[in-house]
Amino acid sequence: MTGATRMIYHFGGGEADGNKDMKDLLGGKGANLAEMSGLGLPVPPGFTITTEVCLEYLRKGGHPEGLREEVASAMASIEKRMEQRFGDARRPLLVSCRSGARASMPGMMDTVLNIGLNDETVKGLAAASGDERFALDCYRRLIEMYGDVVMRTGREEYHRALEKAKHEAGVEEDRHVPVQALQALIVRYKEIAKASAGRAFPEDPKEQIWGAIEAVFRSWNGARAREYRRIHSLPDDWGTAVNVQAMVFGNLGDDCGTGVAFTRSPATGETGLYGEFLPNAQGEDVVAGIRTPQPIRRNASAPGLSLEETMPAIYKELSGFAETLEKHYREMQDIEFTIQKGRLFTLQTRRGARTGQAAVRIAVAMTREGLIVSDEALLRVEAARLADLLADSFPEGTRVTAQRDGRLLGNGLNAGPGAASGKAAFTADAAYAMARGGHDNVPVILVRGETSPEDIKGMEAARGILTARGGMTSHAAVVARGMGKPCVVGFGALVVGEDGRSCRVGERTILEGEFLSIDGTTGDVMLGEIATTSSEIVKVLVDRSLKPEASALYRDYETLMSWADGARRMKVRSNSDTPSDAATARRLGAEGIGLCRTEHMFFGADRIVAVREMILADAKPQRQKALAKILPMQREDFLGIFRAMDGLPVTIRLLDPPLHEFLPRESAAIDEVAAQMGVTARTVRERVERLAESNPMLGHRGCRLGLTHPEIYEVQLQAVFEAALAAAREGVQVYPEVMHPLVGTGEEIRRLRAMTVAMAERILSDQKPAIPWLVGTMIEVPRACIAAAEIAADAQFFSFGTNDLTQMTYGYSRDDTRNFLPVYIAERILPSDPFASIDQPGVGRLVTMAVEEGRRVNPKLKIGVCGEHGGDPASVEFFDRAGLDYVSCSAYRVPIARLAAAQAALKALGGKRR
Amino acid sequence: MTGATRMIYHFGGGEADGNKDMKDLLGGKGANLAEMSGLGLPVPPGFTITTEVCLEYLRKGGHPEGLREEVASAMASIEKRMEQRFGDARRPLLVSCRSGARASMPGMMDTVLNIGLNDETVKGLAAASGDERFALDCYRRLIEMYGDVVMRTGREEYHRALEKAKHEAGVEEDRHVPVQALQALIVRYKEIAKASAGRAFPEDPKEQIWGAIEAVFRSWNGARAREYRRIHSLPDDWGTAVNVQAMVFGNLGDDCGTGVAFTRSPATGETGLYGEFLPNAQGEDVVAGIRTPQPIRRNASAPGLSLEETMPAIYKELSGFAETLEKHYREMQDIEFTIQKGRLFTLQTRRGARTGQAAVRIAVAMTREGLIVSDEALLRVEAARLADLLADSFPEGTRVTAQRDGRLLGNGLNAGPGAASGKAAFTADAAYAMARGGHDNVPVILVRGETSPEDIKGMEAARGILTARGGMTSHAAVVARGMGKPCVVGFGALVVGEDGRSCRVGERTILEGEFLSIDGTTGDVMLGEIATTSSEIVKVLVDRSLKPEASALYRDYETLMSWADGARRMKVRSNSDTPSDAATARRLGAEGIGLCRTEHMFFGADRIVAVREMILADAKPQRQKALAKILPMQREDFLGIFRAMDGLPVTIRLLDPPLHEFLPRESAAIDEVAAQMGVTARTVRERVERLAESNPMLGHRGCRLGLTHPEIYEVQLQAVFEAALAAAREGVQVYPEVMHPLVGTGEEIRRLRAMTVAMAERILSDQKPAIPWLVGTMIEVPRACIAAAEIAADAQFFSFGTNDLTQMTYGYSRDDTRNFLPVYIAERILPSDPFASIDQPGVGRLVTMAVEEGRRVNPKLKIGVCGEHGGDPASVEFFDRAGLDYVSCSAYRVPIARLAAAQAALKALGGKRR
Repeated sequence: MTGATRMIYHFGGGEADGNKDMKDLLGGKGANLAEMSGLGLPVPPGFTITTEVCLEYLRKGGHPEGLREEVASAMASIEKRMEQRFGDARRPLLVSCRSGARASMPGMMDTVLNIGLNDETVKGLAAASGDERFALDCYRRLIEMYGDVVMRTGREEYHRALEKAKHEAGVEEDRHVPVQALQALIVRYKEIAKASAGRAFPEDPKEQIWGAIEAVFRSWNGARAREYRRIHSLPDDWGTAVNVQAMVFGNLGDDCGTGVAFTRSPATGETGLYGEFLPNAQGEDVVAGIRTPQPIRRNASAPGLSLEETMPAIYKELSGFAETLEKHYREMQDIEFTIQKGRLFTLQTRRGARTGQAAVRIAVAMTREGLIVSDEALLRVEAARLADLLADSFPEGTRVTAQRDGRLLGNGLNAGPGAASGKAAFTADAAYAMARGGHDNVPVILVRGETSPEDIKGMEAARGILTARGGMTSHAAVVARGMGKPCVVGFGALVVGEDGRSCRVGERTILEGEFLSIDGTTGDVMLGEIATTSSEIVKVLVDRSLKPEASALYRDYETLMSWADGARRMKVRSNSDTPSDAATARRLGAEGIGLCRTEHMFFGADRIVAVREMILADAKPQRQKALAKILPMQREDFLGIFRAMDGLPVTIRLLDPPLHEFLPRESAAIDEVAAQMGVTARTVRERVERLAESNPMLGHRGCRLGLTHPEIYEVQLQAVFEAALAAAREGVQVYPEVMHPLVGTGEEIRRLRAMTVAMAERILSDQKPAIPWLVGTMIEVPRACIAAAEIAADAQFFSFGTNDLTQMTYGYSRDDTRNFLPVYIAERILPSDPFASIDQPGVGRLVTMAVEEGRRVNPKLKIGVCGEHGGDPASVEFFDRAGLDYVSCSAYRVPIARLAAAQAALKALGGKRR
Repeated sequence: MTGATRMIYHFGGGEADGNKDMKDLLGGKGANLAEMSGLGLPVPPGFTITTEVCLEYLRKGGHPEGLREEVASAMASIEKRMEQRFGDARRPLLVSCRSGARASMPGMMDTVLNIGLNDETVKGLAAASGDERFALDCYRRLIEMYGDVVMRTGREEYHRALEKAKHEAGVEEDRHVPVQALQALIVRYKEIAKASAGRAFPEDPKEQIWGAIEAVFRSWNGARAREYRRIHSLPDDWGTAVNVQAMVFGNLGDDCGTGVAFTRSPATGETGLYGEFLPNAQGEDVVAGIRTPQPIRRNASAPGLSLEETMPAIYKELSGFAETLEKHYREMQDIEFTIQKGRLFTLQTRRGARTGQAAVRIAVAMTREGLIVSDEALLRVEAARLADLLADSFPEGTRVTAQRDGRLLGNGLNAGPGAASGKAAFTADAAYAMARGGHDNVPVILVRGETSPEDIKGMEAARGILTARGGMTSHAAVVARGMGKPCVVGFGALVVGEDGRSCRVGERTILEGEFLSIDGTTGDVMLGEIATTSSEIVKVLVDRSLKPEASALYRDYETLMSWADGARRMKVRSNSDTPSDAATARRLGAEGIGLCRTEHMFFGADRIVAVREMILADAKPQRQKALAKILPMQREDFLGIFRAMDGLPVTIRLLDPPLHEFLPRESAAIDEVAAQMGVTARTVRERVERLAESNPMLGHRGCRLGLTHPEIYEVQLQAVFEAALAAAREGVQVYPEVMHPLVGTGEEIRRLRAMTVAMAERILSDQKPAIPWLVGTMIEVPRACIAAAEIAADAQFFSFGTNDLTQMTYGYSRDDTRNFLPVYIAERILPSDPFASIDQPGVGRLVTMAVEEGRRVNPKLKIGVCGEHGGDPASVEFFDRAGLDYVSCSAYRVPIARLAAAQAALKALGGKRR
């Protein structure tokens, strides 16, 4: 550092040396305090020692020349502004000392409050505040914090002493410890500090402040901070700034208080100041939640008088500050303030957190108000939060109430957003019977160890799904999201009874028919019935029970979506298997179907018999006979989907799962099937055994089935093209895209393409105008990415199946990760769940390779993704960068993908459109 | 084609226009005939029309100008040499017309024999041969062949007519059809040809020859040939040559004959002419095997008189030719010859096929004789055939005898070479009890549906292993090869009884204790006991029952191996899990252990109880207690291996399989374990269920186990380093290499390395001189290849686990490929089994990527492979090109790998060393 470099930046009194753009030098906190002060807001005065000083200190093990003088002069400046003096027994100035790096690093922040107190000044504070207990308590806290942060004594001994004092005084809460006990505690605290650190707690305020500053410097290289930086890939050469700031207190009388204000409602997005305050209280009292806070604005329905009513001048001043800050930051702000003896101080301002609904309304309103432009509005809404807008919800505070009443059973993985309440059913059949059996539509929650394709009917009938096992991309999770149903999976405490009539959660047994409530947005599982509120947007779009003009939220949502559609490059499709799914997806903005799975069609009650007949047949002619029965039904399925998607492309994936998934496993079911088929149970059992696989994920499935049993794919192709023909003759515009799953080599797709072309020519050749159809592949085994050039020669499109691709690239079966993936994520062995957001350096690299090499061979190759990642915003951004043409996701994630695709496009432009 | 280009090349009469290096122009067959003729050998005269003429013909749909004249003149030249005339009724010249492309294309070869016969010339042939039946039969065959190849009539009708004639004449064999019936057949054949083709069979020999030549030209673009070229990636612009050659007959009397001679013994490699002939016979009679051929050389023990005795002059002439050819080609030759009326003709010479033993002895002998140099000798021995030298074998002809006696049960996959005969046992326990239970060492064949790690003890006790399911890399196959035991897997006809006391093969039931014989070299499975012969080399090297100087084969083997060791760049290690395996591998030339699996150690009877205790424990302290019991045993295991490998590196892979593999599955076994552990059966069952996985291959195993249950790896590391210390103190030189399995991310290996370093420092830090140890990873999940740079930063070595890497890259579970992989290979959807030979464009590309990116980050990275591919010669060549430092394979494949590595190095040099 050269002598010329400035070491200290002042703020406070409506002016500042720094500003918000100086985070590198002043840290995030320091830059922000300077900015607020520079705007003229009443920030308690203070100063920031730069990150460069910290680095210099760490480099040479002592502070740079001249710092001591600069700090002294800065302290004098605070004294002047506060009309107090550091170490003065009558009007003592107290300061805080906090670290603050370029980026927020929670958990490594070292803070010392109340610096400046000692046996003398504490009396001055008592006198000034008129509250001896308060002053002593501040002093006690200083010794503990200073002991911990500066003298490295730890905190345990102090806590033990405090507990002992409370016990002796017969009080429960810290704030009820009497004065005399506090005085004794302070003596004891000093003894603890001295005994632990080998030196006395310094009474000299100057020594206190220097100790604190140096401790903050050193904390940058502490084990905790280094580990944090390693995990988050932050560089070691940033250093931390140190912020020294005058303390203000909101608990010095009735003309004091503290609170938090939002410039708009964080819950609904409504315009106008919003927030809560506590008179005569400290910030931590608000957090502790012991007293009920009062509203800031006049509000008849809220408890207690508002700030507007009790302190109208302060209210007016705060409103002005809020307006200033929102205009200045062009964003809704969350402002912390303290009122000390009738004087308002703003302590912090930051972007206000908000619900999805509020985010949409605020972004659109601010654009309307001219504060921001629409591109900015698009970037302001966290895409994933749109799920909140579409899901049913429980009333606010439901969790707290349930916990208080002992009805909160625990928390699983929030696999499908929304809230649902219903009677517990433990088998798919029971769920179906309960929901559809009676005259009234009984709400049901399907509770299973895990689900399988056989459970589809029960899942459709249920309001929500709860499973003991499985992750975010387990069968239950994927299917539930596809259906837009609330779903909690991986609820480890749950044990479903073998009788299929009950389950256990800990000591608690729940019987069939008892009410359960699950919140798929949070993962909460609760006992009893809880009323849900429907999403306004779903009411308008899907169930049509609300007129568009009746919902302001809907109108803002539509506005935002129209901006998104104008901004994005990638198309958005949906993964939909039925005409009704397809219609829903279309209303939610899907521009086609990216994945229509055909295996669900094989499970229908009217066809599973024929499917099993086909599987049990010994020879091809018998299989063909059985398949002929399935043909007309499958054709109808496709026709329905083509009608629903009139004018849009539909990607149909041929049969993917191994055949054994269609056979029963339990003895009774085997007997039943044998009777239906007219064969012996032994025949069925032998076939089940012959088809059984050790690792079905890597077995005889996908196009391997289509190549070894071409008759299956041929019937499916026939159904696709006949349905297309029928639809076209009805005047429907059809764009069928035939997708072959699990392709790993060029030779596979070459043969499958030939099979597809032959069938299309047979059925469609006479049709005028010609029906435009495509044939392509899923890209889901790693080898397909490596051999993309070979495959692209015979494929018109690629669709990345990133679920399976992730499974095989990592070697993780998503059904089997329960015992290690949570540990991996918790211990940060993995940065995040690769099934939730695509692993860009690993799986993503394979995707990029395949895109580049595939397009090199076949420049017209259409490329999309139809794995669960298609609905994850971070993944969507990656796919945009990788050059994909579209993403496809479950219907209720389509709006998320539309917005995420717009954000990706805007980021790619680097703000050029603005 | 310019007029100047030569269209026709002559051969015969000890001279030729072409030679063996003109394959592009003359095709392989034509070039070879020219070469032989040029050497002065008596090749029946003829000529070759070039491939260029064929291409010209195909291009313009007719032959080039002047060809007709050149063919006529070439025919005249044959006539002169044969002293016969084409179409002459008295001394008719007959010719053959054959295709012949640059490379051999079996199955697309079109051939017409006996061209020149018609109603007139057939009489001349009858007179010249003195055998009317023979002449008529030749004529009949011409009509059929010509009809099929030239007139496209197919062959079916002719066959039907022949069958009818035989039936009417009351004879069984073609050669017994009487003269009159043949005459009638010829009339009928002509009718068939005319009816099918719409035109008559041409009686004009000139028309016959032209028809045949054009047909051969056209066959190049036939569907069969095009498909063949596509599959084998051969270019379409080669074209085929046409070879026209005078016919000679070996069946015109007692001064005639035909045979095959090898310049050395193809069975043992012994020096001296070897072979068989049939007097008065045609080539096809030798093939048909109806008459027993006589030896060429005088041989008291062989049936019949030798050629040496019956035709000494011919024998002498043939011996001279053989010597000429072997010297000329510098390779053992397989020579086809025919004697026509006391005149010897050589019809073909080619490299002689040979057994592994013969290959070694011939290569070494030829080097000794100065015919070739040692580098050539190395390239002359097919590395995979060395397995024959190490395996036990059944006597020659065993299969034929078994088939005749109805004892041949069928054929499975030849998974572990060698022959074994023993009493059938259907459980591992039974095998163990039978083999080890009594006073004498009863030979046992273990017969299972498939094997699992629990069967190890039984596999060790058995002489050979037979399974109904599984492929070349199934558990049974891998373990058997590791043990050097004969093994046949995937024997689909086998159904093992549920009682565990019998099995069925078709209608045949085999009970426990009945004798079975399996040939793991061929895959044959036979009933009954068959005596085996031990390998001489194994007798010298492993069981030491033979002195080295007593075996000429052993000496030649050692010579060849020493040349190989001098030529190769890559090291060769073995996959060995026990001290005795390690010792065997070392004798077979292993330069270290590349893979020592530790899971086998967990299955030992003395420790499985402690292992289960560990798995059933609920908390870490209990697990640690159980692990403490395993520690001393595992330490002893490692100590034994270190001793056996004194001075060589030993790579130890920490626990890899999921824990549930160590728990029992059946009810009775669960009860037993529960009793042993002192817990309820329900506890065991619940744990078994909790640990159960849908896709165990992709589950909670490998380093995932080591990171979630660090106590397991810590105990293993402790055992490794304590054993290393103990060994070092005994004076053993130890080079332990700790290998962490299933690593997929940099963070995994970073933590595992830290764990390893901490343990090594704890145990080894005081040891002087320091024990050199390494820590590295298996590279077996695709992501590890993609993230190699990240992983290499914390690994000292990579070892490719290409079995798992192939499974995950393709998405094939090797346990589940039985229903599609054989179809894929048979129908050439895949060029070969990727588990037998590495998939170079797919899996291989990942390997290359990982090597390049790993070395870029860590230039000192040591890289090897320890999958089954390490013993496959084609894969070894690939690994050499990819720059690996070593390959590791099962002990009995070590010699194969040594030779293959030498061949790879020589090929990489491109002959520069020679």
